[in-house]
Amino acid sequence: MADKMKAAIFIEPGRIVLGEKPMPQIGPNDALIRITTTTICGTDIHILKGEYPVEKGLTIGHEPVGVIEKLGRNVVGYTEGQRVIAGAICPSGHSNACLDGLHSQDGPGTAHGLKPMGGWRFGNTIDGAQAEYLLVPDAMANLAAVPDGLTDTQVLMCPDIMSTGFAGAEAANIRIGDTVAVFAQGPIGLCATAGARLRGATTIIAVDSVPERLAMAKRLGADAVVNFKEVDAVEAIMELTNGRGVDAAIEALGLQQTFASCLEVLKPGGTLSSLGVYSSDLTIPLAAFHAGLGDNKIVTSLCPGGKERMRRLMNVIAAERLDLGPLVTHHYGLDRIEEAYELFANQRDGVLKVAITT
Amino acid sequence: MADKMKAAIFIEPGRIVLGEKPMPQIGPNDALIRITTTTICGTDIHILKGEYPVEKGLTIGHEPVGVIEKLGRNVVGYTEGQRVIAGAICPSGHSNACLDGLHSQDGPGTAHGLKPMGGWRFGNTIDGAQAEYLLVPDAMANLAAVPDGLTDTQVLMCPDIMSTGFAGAEAANIRIGDTVAVFAQGPIGLCATAGARLRGATTIIAVDSVPERLAMAKRLGADAVVNFKEVDAVEAIMELTNGRGVDAAIEALGLQQTFASCLEVLKPGGTLSSLGVYSSDLTIPLAAFHAGLGDNKIVTSLCPGGKERMRRLMNVIAAERLDLGPLVTHHYGLDRIEEAYELFANQRDGVLKVAITT
Amino acid sequence: MADKMKAAIFIEPGRIVLGEKPMPQIGPNDALIRITTTTICGTDIHILKGEYPVEKGLTIGHEPVGVIEKLGRNVVGYTEGQRVIAGAICPSGHSNACLDGLHSQDGPGTAHGLKPMGGWRFGNTIDGAQAEYLLVPDAMANLAAVPDGLTDTQVLMCPDIMSTGFAGAEAANIRIGDTVAVFAQGPIGLCATAGARLRGATTIIAVDSVPERLAMAKRLGADAVVNFKEVDAVEAIMELTNGRGVDAAIEALGLQQTFASCLEVLKPGGTLSSLGVYSSDLTIPLAAFHAGLGDNKIVTSLCPGGKERMRRLMNVIAAERLDLGPLVTHHYGLDRIEEAYELFANQRDGVLKVAITT
Amino acid sequence: MADKMKAAIFIEPGRIVLGEKPMPQIGPNDALIRITTTTICGTDIHILKGEYPVEKGLTIGHEPVGVIEKLGRNVVGYTEGQRVIAGAICPSGHSNACLDGLHSQDGPGTAHGLKPMGGWRFGNTIDGAQAEYLLVPDAMANLAAVPDGLTDTQVLMCPDIMSTGFAGAEAANIRIGDTVAVFAQGPIGLCATAGARLRGATTIIAVDSVPERLAMAKRLGADAVVNFKEVDAVEAIMELTNGRGVDAAIEALGLQQTFASCLEVLKPGGTLSSLGVYSSDLTIPLAAFHAGLGDNKIVTSLCPGGKERMRRLMNVIAAERLDLGPLVTHHYGLDRIEEAYELFANQRDGVLKVAITT
Repeated sequence: MADKMKAAIFIEPGRIVLGEKPMPQIGPNDALIRITTTTICGTDIHILKGEYPVEKGLTIGHEPVGVIEKLGRNVVGYTEGQRVIAGAICPSGHSNACLDGLHSQDGPGTAHGLKPMGGWRFGNTIDGAQAEYLLVPDAMANLAAVPDGLTDTQVLMCPDIMSTGFAGAEAANIRIGDTVAVFAQGPIGLCATAGARLRGATTIIAVDSVPERLAMAKRLGADAVVNFKEVDAVEAIMELTNGRGVDAAIEALGLQQTFASCLEVLKPGGTLSSLGVYSSDLTIPLAAFHAGLGDNKIVTSLCPGGKERMRRLMNVIAAERLDLGPLVTHHYGLDRIEEAYELFANQRDGVLKVAITT
Repeated sequence: MADKMKAAIFIEPGRIVLGEKPMPQIGPNDALIRITTTTICGTDIHILKGEYPVEKGLTIGHEPVGVIEKLGRNVVGYTEGQRVIAGAICPSGHSNACLDGLHSQDGPGTAHGLKPMGGWRFGNTIDGAQAEYLLVPDAMANLAAVPDGLTDTQVLMCPDIMSTGFAGAEAANIRIGDTVAVFAQGPIGLCATAGARLRGATTIIAVDSVPERLAMAKRLGADAVVNFKEVDAVEAIMELTNGRGVDAAIEALGLQQTFASCLEVLKPGGTLSSLGVYSSDLTIPLAAFHAGLGDNKIVTSLCPGGKERMRRLMNVIAAERLDLGPLVTHHYGLDRIEEAYELFANQRDGVLKVAITT
Repeated sequence: MADKMKAAIFIEPGRIVLGEKPMPQIGPNDALIRITTTTICGTDIHILKGEYPVEKGLTIGHEPVGVIEKLGRNVVGYTEGQRVIAGAICPSGHSNACLDGLHSQDGPGTAHGLKPMGGWRFGNTIDGAQAEYLLVPDAMANLAAVPDGLTDTQVLMCPDIMSTGFAGAEAANIRIGDTVAVFAQGPIGLCATAGARLRGATTIIAVDSVPERLAMAKRLGADAVVNFKEVDAVEAIMELTNGRGVDAAIEALGLQQTFASCLEVLKPGGTLSSLGVYSSDLTIPLAAFHAGLGDNKIVTSLCPGGKERMRRLMNVIAAERLDLGPLVTHHYGLDRIEEAYELFANQRDGVLKVAITT
Repeated sequence: MADKMKAAIFIEPGRIVLGEKPMPQIGPNDALIRITTTTICGTDIHILKGEYPVEKGLTIGHEPVGVIEKLGRNVVGYTEGQRVIAGAICPSGHSNACLDGLHSQDGPGTAHGLKPMGGWRFGNTIDGAQAEYLLVPDAMANLAAVPDGLTDTQVLMCPDIMSTGFAGAEAANIRIGDTVAVFAQGPIGLCATAGARLRGATTIIAVDSVPERLAMAKRLGADAVVNFKEVDAVEAIMELTNGRGVDAAIEALGLQQTFASCLEVLKPGGTLSSLGVYSSDLTIPLAAFHAGLGDNKIVTSLCPGGKERMRRLMNVIAAERLDLGPLVTHHYGLDRIEEAYELFANQRDGVLKVAITT
């Protein structure tokens, strides 16, 4: 094993470059993974643009697919050479939040593990997955074996996009026969649409303005699509539901307008499930909120991680409930990751997700 | 039985007067109640001030304690002369919302029963309880017998204040050992404080600025009180929780500031349970909302009604878990209800709740 | 309208015959339905055999599809001539159980509405659906309009089989990625299999001994099938789950052996969801119950009814999530219902369900 | 630190003796605790009698209160000399079960962590707490600091009895106003009674035959007590509930008769929450089970552990919601633990719990 490895490093706002880093030193509870495939997330673009702050010199990326290169002394239940993934969120397993079942809100450095997003470590507080090798902390809580027969591309969405999108549907408390609207059909919104279908919603309305995304939404489970550039989305949804409104609305973009639209189409007693990462204060419109008397819920979800979540999501793929392969529209080698960033940051060429292989 | 009865009638904004009305005509599913005690709610003051619109000529009031005068032809299971209460919210039992378990969001005039607050009829869409007699629709769903040994005053809070306040604690999903902050200690906030205690919270922090209300909060279950005129409430709560924040925060006032403070003291994964009736758009502060990544919930509750809810709440009183008698600070006869409105609207003389007897 | 109508009448154990009955008298909250299609349930066979007692002279049947002939004076929101269904369970909407959200356990004749199966009235405590006309009590709580474009056959399973089978999956608290075993693939078991799929289970194992039923199970959602005449079902399931056991096991037969097998394949923390109607005491095997230390749940469900449930189930059909048409293997006119009973009681000719049309 | 320590060792069925053991060797994730107080559990008596098998030579005991003597190299967030407790159940935090929120059903030696009771390690699969020192595995998941001002005796029930008893109330899904029966008022049943009160039950009926236990039940929260030696418990409860039955029944003994009685007093839709450790197959009576049609639930709970649970339980004590001190009826030094076993095994002298101090 070499001393050095290639990695996509955050230099300063505007610059993520492919550079060299020393090979990670492995501790007793860690595992070292040789990355075979990873991807770039919208959050990485926020980092690139300086909108989400991380330390200079950090390796970016939180969606690892790879092979176990080396296991820490305490790590049992795995073998070197095994194909694995780890979730974008890496719970320690031993924080108060984890012991309380709130694994995403783990926080390694705090007494009570309650720092928001504390569980998000890769490419945020520790070196990430856009590299030749990745150190996975608390490996026994986080490494999930890839079932035989599944390709890297098939499981590439599990660590983040699929887990997050599904969480939006799960938190919406969907029941069989529900009507659900999903605002925005980027990769996460598409997974929320697919998740709503898997939970038993029977009228799923997908909203976006890009025809290809709306077409993909139909392919992944939407019953109806609304192009907000062509019609007023709220009006269209109220019409589709005969004025009844939706049981659940999923926000998958992170903007005031989609957040407000979710509330406007929600029936009394309905749930707004929010997945967006917002960048400014939000306004709740009084009427759509029924002045606080509508028995409504607003719930937010951070991507669930940990090996059990990954096991379940890979089961969904293995059982052929869902094929997220079509979300991967572009492939690059790690050597060309800067090009991939350029493409993805500018959303050129109809890109949905980019696979980075090493 | 006379042809006419006395009733507190909404004339126009600024004027609720004691007048005369014809005795109600009873339908097959109705019951006629002779009111023995009722009260004035903060919502009635909104009506008085013209802030919440109702039709001119409507009898106000939604908190009935009384005696069955007459039963509709289809109504079985009750006897004339029986002491009963009915909830402020009168579900029909047969709307789609009711069949879905969402009884408060019933709506008698709509196909799907989903008009917000549809279940609130007394003193809103039909004549109310501040009168000598009250017609209770869907009587079999709404009349609850008062257990022997309980006085009118003891059960007077059940129809609205206690049901609403408890709902705030119930919707907060409190677990044994939780820390809960309750913002505002008016009658509803005090009941939320008591409800949090009944659900097993072990650190209950009550916030208000009126020393008598904070003292009452301690009496009804608060472990600590914070006077927001003396200290910064958010800072005080963070200090009381060692920086951990609260598992649940209950908003019981209906203002932007208390709503925002709830979010600011909430731990990741925590729940804001909102009871306030707001009068303008609300702002969600980005940082307190963790940009949407905190696994937080915001839930709103309308007062649960129906005879089963009333039965349970009267059980709480009968079992001596809680004595809400001290909330009734003033008594008036129906004849002097205009004076009572004047006192209550101006919150004079340390008033919490006023009992109106006939 | 004639004075008399044809109806399948329980005469005595062993005899259900087509006879004549007076047309029902309609009360203010009732509706009279002209039955267009109905079916025979396994429960009707229990009645036929005298295993479940009903009064002599009762019209049998609890799965009505029809047209509104006449509405009671108080019934609004419907029109005569409208196509409707009603659930097998007819909640009143106004019992304590209903107000508590427990609509199936309604009981019209008891103070608190808690008699088990109290909500099951058609063909049990009042005249049923195997007739030319059916009186639906509490019509506003129970009549659900059939969406345009759906045939009688398509919605015929909604009142009972589909509602019950789905309830088994819903009560099992299935999550995305779960492994579920369904014991017995009669009509209810098949609907449980389909329901498990709709809730997001990704490994669904269907157990039966009839090859046609196992084939139908695969068509409706099973990932794997186990023929218990060919292999030991428990062993086969443990092998299919790599010794892990299932997250949920659904009992859809009503026998000791299937009940015990459910426990034997259940993982610690897993749920046994029971749909069977048992006819003798049950034994819980100590080891499979982990001596009471396995954090397991055993839940039973009675068919959910009411118009909102029916609306949701018809949505499932309309959205093409599921086609239960193939469950209807035989058709008879009401005139030949005695033949239909003979066929169904003896489970001849591969019968799954029989449509009875008038 | 000495090389050897005293410990209560299982020699063979019938013999637990105070002997000597080498001091434990501490691994990187472990902590060594100097025990200051511990106790004997009913389960230990099962071990003593050979009814529950453990390896010969094992140190018994699973209820540690002590002081941190030494921390493993990886353990942060604690200091040597700190007063701590650990739960009877020691989840690893990193099994699939733990990552799924099912911490009690952890299993250190299995791939999926699903062996029932896998989380119970002290005095079961590893050396226990009835010794001078205790090695706590996965210390960061399990050590909980004792709040200042709480004595050993005050927190001695937290590791097992209080956690288990409360779990019975929590799993019963109690709501405000519920009626709950608790069968058997030994230490766990008493804690279930207290737990039912903390969750908001308003009619709590405690069943036992020992007057002192019934008196203690009243002190800890029961509204009514039933002495099953004096009256038929089922009849008495049906009378106390006016024939309605209870919303939840908690089994805290582990016998067929109490299990069946729970079902017999349960209303349709009610929950049997089972805490007992059974020693033979159980029978479910058909009628009490409503033939499977009563929408009933049977749930079992294993003592929840982990540091967050312990933190919450100690909060309950610190907040003075409950004083379990009176459950400790006897005190012995570790040197005299054999006497303590003799007393406790024979339930002499009105013993409830014995404190063992070192």
